[in-house]
Amino acid sequence: MAFDRLIKNIIEKQNPTVAGLDPKLDYVPASIRNACFEKYGKTLEGAAAALLEFNKAIIDKIFDIVPAIKPQAAYYEMYGWQGVRALAETIAYAREKGMFVITDGKRNDIGTTMEAYAAAHLGAVDVAGESVEPFGADALTVNAYLGTDGVAPLLGICRERDKGIFVLVKTSNPSSGELQDLKLQNGKTVYEQMGEMCESWGEQLPGEYGYSGVGAVVGATYPDQLKEMREKAPHTFFLVPGYGAQGGGANDAKFAFDKNGLGAIINSSRGIMCAWKKQGLSEDDFADAARAEAIRMKEDILSVIGEIKA
Amino acid sequence: MAFDRLIKNIIEKQNPTVAGLDPKLDYVPASIRNACFEKYGKTLEGAAAALLEFNKAIIDKIFDIVPAIKPQAAYYEMYGWQGVRALAETIAYAREKGMFVITDGKRNDIGTTMEAYAAAHLGAVDVAGESVEPFGADALTVNAYLGTDGVAPLLGICRERDKGIFVLVKTSNPSSGELQDLKLQNGKTVYEQMGEMCESWGEQLPGEYGYSGVGAVVGATYPDQLKEMREKAPHTFFLVPGYGAQGGGANDAKFAFDKNGLGAIINSSRGIMCAWKKQGLSEDDFADAARAEAIRMKEDILSVIGEIKA
Repeated sequence: MAFDRLIKNIIEKQNPTVAGLDPKLDYVPASIRNACFEKYGKTLEGAAAALLEFNKAIIDKIFDIVPAIKPQAAYYEMYGWQGVRALAETIAYAREKGMFVITDGKRNDIGTTMEAYAAAHLGAVDVAGESVEPFGADALTVNAYLGTDGVAPLLGICRERDKGIFVLVKTSNPSSGELQDLKLQNGKTVYEQMGEMCESWGEQLPGEYGYSGVGAVVGATYPDQLKEMREKAPHTFFLVPGYGAQGGGANDAKFAFDKNGLGAIINSSRGIMCAWKKQGLSEDDFADAARAEAIRMKEDILSVIGEIKA
Repeated sequence: MAFDRLIKNIIEKQNPTVAGLDPKLDYVPASIRNACFEKYGKTLEGAAAALLEFNKAIIDKIFDIVPAIKPQAAYYEMYGWQGVRALAETIAYAREKGMFVITDGKRNDIGTTMEAYAAAHLGAVDVAGESVEPFGADALTVNAYLGTDGVAPLLGICRERDKGIFVLVKTSNPSSGELQDLKLQNGKTVYEQMGEMCESWGEQLPGEYGYSGVGAVVGATYPDQLKEMREKAPHTFFLVPGYGAQGGGANDAKFAFDKNGLGAIINSSRGIMCAWKKQGLSEDDFADAARAEAIRMKEDILSVIGEIKA
């Protein structure tokens, strides 16, 4: 099961974090940007080339210490199909380096269409008899507002191809409660109901560490809910956004973990990509700064949760 | 306001329908596929070229009678970044022909990331001082499980650039009720709550026909809920999937409309794209068959709702 691979990688590196690669063009140093614009013009192609070079430089500096990356699809789509090509190339590059790749796409649709998303991001597609992987990530984030129809097509592909999904349960943003915190007549909140559905879907994808292939997104910005959901969804592996730039700290994120320090991976995006600013370095030192921040973040979290044990 | 443009187009053509362009490679005639594979190899590039040619042929045959197309992002992503390029080119081609384009992406994320999706699909992005439209659709479907943060960034772009959004309220799939039909302690269902949020967001984008720039997706497969939501969300324009292949008919879809025959647009995807099969024609006649089906569908719906009046 895919999250077994991720968990092994986390234990081996003693690092329960994932680097979010959500590159805006503004984050890319002028030296890289200008070289790409010179080569490809002031075009989406030039912008996409700059993003890819930025990502590769960060991956080169962190792949030996960070188990996973999480590219956010929106930041690539923002640069058109050329940006989406940079997403595909980023995924391929990180996987070559042995990293676990979570495409953060929050995809959702009805059954037949969800099959297409599943094939796109986690599966393969038949092209005149040739099987081709369009994006080839290890896991995909999913919004399950549409219910089981929108999740079931992913479960088959996860089983066949050793992949996983993370379903949005309690998101990290300020207004997440508008819908997610509402109480249902069955006494549960909407997010709790969603967490229960994750546990149920996950029964089809059991894993050797006790966590299924159906994970959940639960934000570090809501530590009480994180704690609640860790208890109520004991087989659900958490992807935890909201650490760093969004305001969550290690003392918030710690509730995502079980007593062995397993059960979750904490994301940082801007904190890693823009680390040079906080460290008072030149923008050209972004990759070294990203590594230093990745080490600081790992140590920050380990100082609270202790050694990660199998 | 963008839906005013759409409504004008609907009235002028007396056609409240949208053609869903969700092309699987299987739907494309062998003659087109083979020509593309010969030119580009049995590759994603070849597949994407075939999708684009298929789409263009349908658009050529329907743009004078159908007001809008709705490409479903999943079916393009399924063919990698090359497929996503075909999506961008399909959008551009349909807009050149005067069609209103709804990208069905069901995008959703936290505020800062939603800004990137908004720029990608409805806005423009700055590339070294040049403003470039990455995809340039007229409207985007959105999943609002994350609340206002995930919708607000779109509202600004909708106002500035004359665009619209459709928020998932009650989807057409069999399991949509698992979450959407649950009753909240405030006495409303989850979908009803979502519809109310659409009415509220829409206040920022009023339109001249009484419908705001924040529409809702409500499936024709749930006529009771469609009728209920038409009453409860009187300023919300509906995008109605589920007609045809999914089982909804004109007598179900009619509840989406107000007394003037306004307030909704009904989608058909497979019904249009694969019309040649039902008509007993050769696959090479797919575009003529699509036109005939578009006319049949329009007449089917008008026979129930009558003339569409401003």
